[in-house]
Amino acid sequence: MLNRFYQTLEAQNDGATQSLGECIARLNFNAEGLIPVITQCHMSGQVLMQAWMNQAAIEKTLVSGHMTYWSRSRRDFWIKGETSGHVQQLVSMRFDCDGDAILCLVEQTGAACHTGRRTCFYLWVDSNNQQVVLQQGENGY
Amino acid sequence: MLNRFYQTLEAQNDGATQSLGECIARLNFNAEGLIPVITQCHMSGQVLMQAWMNQAAIEKTLVSGHMTYWSRSRRDFWIKGETSGHVQQLVSMRFDCDGDAILCLVEQTGAACHTGRRTCFYLWVDSNNQQVVLQQGENGY
Repeated sequence: MLNRFYQTLEAQNDGATQSLGECIARLNFNAEGLIPVITQCHMSGQVLMQAWMNQAAIEKTLVSGHMTYWSRSRRDFWIKGETSGHVQQLVSMRFDCDGDAILCLVEQTGAACHTGRRTCFYLWVDSNNQQVVLQQGENGY
Repeated sequence: MLNRFYQTLEAQNDGATQSLGECIARLNFNAEGLIPVITQCHMSGQVLMQAWMNQAAIEKTLVSGHMTYWSRSRRDFWIKGETSGHVQQLVSMRFDCDGDAILCLVEQTGAACHTGRRTCFYLWVDSNNQQVVLQQGENGY
């Protein structure tokens, strides 16, 4: 989606800096004040889950170093692993070109998925486009 | 979000299969009929972009093998790279545990980002949480 603030950043060179506070304030939050967050293992590169943050959850995550989402079902902050122990330590937070998505690289303790699987993305479309197969990649992504 | 169909899959073992058509039909599309899609390079593991699909875009992507999103600004299908040549060939499509996100591994031709950068996620929060730095990782993610 068009975002004039983020558009002004496009032409800058690598190494240019912007105020973090302004970048956060100008993100494209949706009507519920949320933005999608992709969580990736910083070691293996495996994508672990996708969830949501509001502005306060972004700030809590940055200050605490613990991934803190907004739970749409509970309508409350969700400090990942607070009850399970499967915490996610933030390694690197990144915004995309038009400010409507966040990528977080994390150090994952235990499983990211509530089912006990390492990643939430364990339902793979098969090569014939006929079936979905429960699968966990051993190597690669 | 609670999704009873996807909940029934959780207890199944690796290798179990489900009808692809039913899995697609039971995805948690939002009020606009859209679901977030994460696009990852199948070779490097780099997360390239985040965009949206509706049910028809998912089906077009699977049939054609070319990543086909739904453009929220143009309100139309968006065959990635159709004008730029920077196409994305689908390698593997996966759904998450509660059917509210899609992960696609792709073979990316050229740049994923409209700015010419390999990935859209080039705005990195610095380690002091003060600035955002334009950056493209040379190695790793």
